[in-house]
Amino acid sequence: MRFVDACLGRPVDTTPVWLMRQAGRYLPEYRALREKVSFLEMCKDPDLVVEATLQPLRRFDLDAAIIFSDILIPIEAMGVPVEFVPEPRLPRPVRSSDEARNLRLPDPLRDTGFLMQGIARVRKALDPARALIGFAGAPFTLATYLVEGGGSRDFFQTRTWMVRDPDGFSGLLARIADAVAPYLRAQVDAGADAVQVFDTWAGELTPDDFRRFALPAARSVIERVRREGVPVIYFVNGAAGVLDDLVHSGADCLGLDFRVDLGEAIRRIGGRASVQGNLDPMALFAPPEDLRRRVASLVEAGRAARGHVFNLGHGVHRDTPLSGVETLVEEVHRRGVRSGAETGT
Amino acid sequence: MRFVDACLGRPVDTTPVWLMRQAGRYLPEYRALREKVSFLEMCKDPDLVVEATLQPLRRFDLDAAIIFSDILIPIEAMGVPVEFVPEPRLPRPVRSSDEARNLRLPDPLRDTGFLMQGIARVRKALDPARALIGFAGAPFTLATYLVEGGGSRDFFQTRTWMVRDPDGFSGLLARIADAVAPYLRAQVDAGADAVQVFDTWAGELTPDDFRRFALPAARSVIERVRREGVPVIYFVNGAAGVLDDLVHSGADCLGLDFRVDLGEAIRRIGGRASVQGNLDPMALFAPPEDLRRRVASLVEAGRAARGHVFNLGHGVHRDTPLSGVETLVEEVHRRGVRSGAETGT
Repeated sequence: MRFVDACLGRPVDTTPVWLMRQAGRYLPEYRALREKVSFLEMCKDPDLVVEATLQPLRRFDLDAAIIFSDILIPIEAMGVPVEFVPEPRLPRPVRSSDEARNLRLPDPLRDTGFLMQGIARVRKALDPARALIGFAGAPFTLATYLVEGGGSRDFFQTRTWMVRDPDGFSGLLARIADAVAPYLRAQVDAGADAVQVFDTWAGELTPDDFRRFALPAARSVIERVRREGVPVIYFVNGAAGVLDDLVHSGADCLGLDFRVDLGEAIRRIGGRASVQGNLDPMALFAPPEDLRRRVASLVEAGRAARGHVFNLGHGVHRDTPLSGVETLVEEVHRRGVRSGAETGT
Repeated sequence: MRFVDACLGRPVDTTPVWLMRQAGRYLPEYRALREKVSFLEMCKDPDLVVEATLQPLRRFDLDAAIIFSDILIPIEAMGVPVEFVPEPRLPRPVRSSDEARNLRLPDPLRDTGFLMQGIARVRKALDPARALIGFAGAPFTLATYLVEGGGSRDFFQTRTWMVRDPDGFSGLLARIADAVAPYLRAQVDAGADAVQVFDTWAGELTPDDFRRFALPAARSVIERVRREGVPVIYFVNGAAGVLDDLVHSGADCLGLDFRVDLGEAIRRIGGRASVQGNLDPMALFAPPEDLRRRVASLVEAGRAARGHVFNLGHGVHRDTPLSGVETLVEEVHRRGVRSGAETGT
């Protein structure tokens, strides 16, 4: 698979591409699905999971599908109720080490079987040349939701816990990692060809706190999943301040947000990992010639990487014109870099 | 003045310190003031401006006062109504080049005389060894409020304008710069010893867009203000991805947020500018010994800079314990670096 090969730094015939949030609201057929059911109902219905996952691949020549789900699904399985109103809300936040220790360690098959069924069915339905990506939130990012009781602007509860009781907070992260690692391994067992670990909020930490808290917790998950033999992508949103630390996550491929210069990131990462990213999602609103120019420039920068998976540097925006996505995917494959020729393979 | 000297890279007897949002809600005496009047009323009453500006300097041994105001004050003077409900709301956003061209260029003395009066009175009341800082929002940051009609999470209107009509958007930035530069010069004329230009949202751009839009617009303001002979500080929130570009702003001192490693930033900035920052505001919630350790570590990193103004890497949080601020200020001065000894001055 072109996508898996690029993640692992193996030869590819052209640059693979997929888009974060490609199964989502910019697609009219997705909006039609969502008219009938709530977001959580959709995540828990294997038929709808399969349908939403495959929708973008029917329209676009994408190299990977990503299973339709939400990073808060395992949180619910840990015994913490989650609502979407429509923003996520957790009415019983976790604020102490005692509460952290009492978090359930779910059985992925029993507690989130709908997802594993969805993965198995998508894998069967999918063109063998396309990869299926499983995913989970990284421990720090999940901790912010658990502690804040939802989204947050300044992560006040999380970050004051961290400074007042660093060991207790590390204990919470370890507990979450112990839930997330088996959850991702179950996704691999069900048929996922790769997994992505989303650290959406780790970029809000000081570099020291990132290295002390978010990174070791993510690494502990990534190590346990890589033993399954599939590539792991670690995406840290807002990673510009910790670029040199990302390789210590142990991930095969590092997902980069759009506020990082791709060329500089590749220089700093060197041959130690592949990279994924990082077109500004707003570029999909640009005139086609301008969009093509931006795609070409990133593909060109990606030549220097061990492997490059083209992606946006953030989720696709719900108002994105479909023609922009079409142009993007075509242009990546047309301009894309054939790599590994020098190895004769 | 110790603060001005550090901004300009001149010898100081110890590291100067002030805190972003030091005149604000963490102070009980500020909350008492605010009980009687709205935020905008307070900004427009020179007596209250003077009182709020001086409050933190009565409690703490700070090296600078920053005039109490809001970055949206000149926006109102440009003819665009602003409400605080309590978040800023602009019911008539600017969405076209025509609207941008029609923005008024205010007369700072006539339209924002309350601020200039406040500055003059604070300067008279203030210990001559303490600096008074004036400020304004940078053009890009002000543009986000004008275009979005308030705060935003993804800056969708702003960023789609930017990709669809880059020249028109640059025109908007130029118009804002033409309003902001005289506004800052008037603050200097009124008695400000330095000014800070806040680019709160420029870190949300790709590095290319930062260099194309936010940076030239900020530079155009900074150049016009530096001619007044006072130091200019340029603060970009979330600047980790554009550290190497900041010196091209022309600012004397670069304000850094807490997601940047201070030592790395200083290495990249070299002797081309002083730096300001960048303690995590959450460190003020840490046990005193831990806070002291963090302060010492930043002071130590600051030794390598041309000049170092100690500050938080973001505004002080409203729930901050006063004892933390006390410890911080004491520790900066105690640990602070005497510089310039090698020049014999």
